Amino acid sequence: MANPTAAMLVIGDEILSGRTRDSNMHHLAGALTNQGIRLTEVRMVADKPEAIITAVRALSEAYDHVFTSGGIGPTHDDITAECIAAAFDTPIGIRNDARALLQAHYDATDQELNEARLRMARIPDGATLIDNPISAAPGFILGNVHVMAGVPVIFESMVASVLSKLTGGDPILSQSLRINHGEGEIAGSLTILAEDFQDLSIGSYPFMKDGIYGTHVVIRGTDAARIDAAMTRLARSLPEDDM
Amino acid sequence: MANPTAAMLVIGDEILSGRTRDSNMHHLAGALTNQGIRLTEVRMVADKPEAIITAVRALSEAYDHVFTSGGIGPTHDDITAECIAAAFDTPIGIRNDARALLQAHYDATDQELNEARLRMARIPDGATLIDNPISAAPGFILGNVHVMAGVPVIFESMVASVLSKLTGGDPILSQSLRINHGEGEIAGSLTILAEDFQDLSIGSYPFMKDGIYGTHVVIRGTDAARIDAAMTRLARSLPEDDM
Repeated sequence: MANPTAAMLVIGDEILSGRTRDSNMHHLAGALTNQGIRLTEVRMVADKPEAIITAVRALSEAYDHVFTSGGIGPTHDDITAECIAAAFDTPIGIRNDARALLQAHYDATDQELNEARLRMARIPDGATLIDNPISAAPGFILGNVHVMAGVPVIFESMVASVLSKLTGGDPILSQSLRINHGEGEIAGSLTILAEDFQDLSIGSYPFMKDGIYGTHVVIRGTDAARIDAAMTRLARSLPEDDM
Repeated sequence: MANPTAAMLVIGDEILSGRTRDSNMHHLAGALTNQGIRLTEVRMVADKPEAIITAVRALSEAYDHVFTSGGIGPTHDDITAECIAAAFDTPIGIRNDARALLQAHYDATDQELNEARLRMARIPDGATLIDNPISAAPGFILGNVHVMAGVPVIFESMVASVLSKLTGGDPILSQSLRINHGEGEIAGSLTILAEDFQDLSIGSYPFMKDGIYGTHVVIRGTDAARIDAAMTRLARSLPEDDM
């Protein structure tokens, strides 16, 4: 089966200012690859309505699935839910099941479900809720867009719950080989290999360790036998002193 | 002076597959903020010509400066230079000064400047070279696009060299306050604060430590006195047991 495509939208001034180092993108990338879904594009934008709406529309049209992180908390700069609704021209309002989740959580922890917290029950019409086992405030799915929290532990639990329900393509397999030569010395072989195995993705990643230049070659695809064949060919093409 | 805007384009399959964790975005974000340049959007795309060309054109038109990382090595999947040339409808070819830099580097390290490595001397017409003190292969600037290596140590040295020549706006200052209340309890105060200080950016970032919910509030702007005034107002608006 062909692999579905996906895009991610990371929302938040704190990432772009360098205050916070995003870890959600790397987590999602690995989880999607395991699921056989190809993460094809990532965008990171500030907490600005126009930036969010434009990106959501573009990504939602171009890819099978979109995953967002950030901007669904209780404060004035949490505007993701409103922007998703706007991107789909859909009304948004407090939803009773979302309010009940919040009410139960705050009752249990002896806190008040005040006006600010109630904003987290605002859900676009027609969306499906995503469970938040940590702090109750739900994410949601509208169309092909999965809207999740920015706090990594919550984001990761939402990803697990969402991906368990998505159908991936064939798993994306990979093999890698560490070669004690710089990229420039094996680039010719890699070019020929890539031409002969156009169904595979062949990447080369340089490293330098203890003053020696080397290369990790990673061959990726969905057909294990083809990957084996490419790896065998690669090994045979290397300078003798490398093997 | 108004702060210039910037975008970053991270190029590479290895980032999107989750094999490699990008660190260049976070580094650039901090460096630009220090320089008074606002990083406004980031995109990450695969090693695919159409994806790179489309992103370069969109970002180059929308922002004052664009910074790219990745795809300028010697192998078949290093296609950034060709794509930048295509995005600007500019010819590209081996440039003598770039070739001389490579020749000197490989002569000094007893390696051959072979055909693959010579690809790293392909520079779009009219571009300015960016020095690479580590492995010689230069980056370049074409129009408002700064094309840099993906290997973090090289990327970071190129950023330092490029930013020293760019004019930023007023430095972007920030103050932060740690508050021992969840976001939901201070959200009302923050909303009023944000309305009264629209020239500042006021962000709130929840944390949970030892079972206690808290919030870091970060106020950012270019006028130190305004930031002081907003911080004072914020402190006064907090519940008494917090101060």
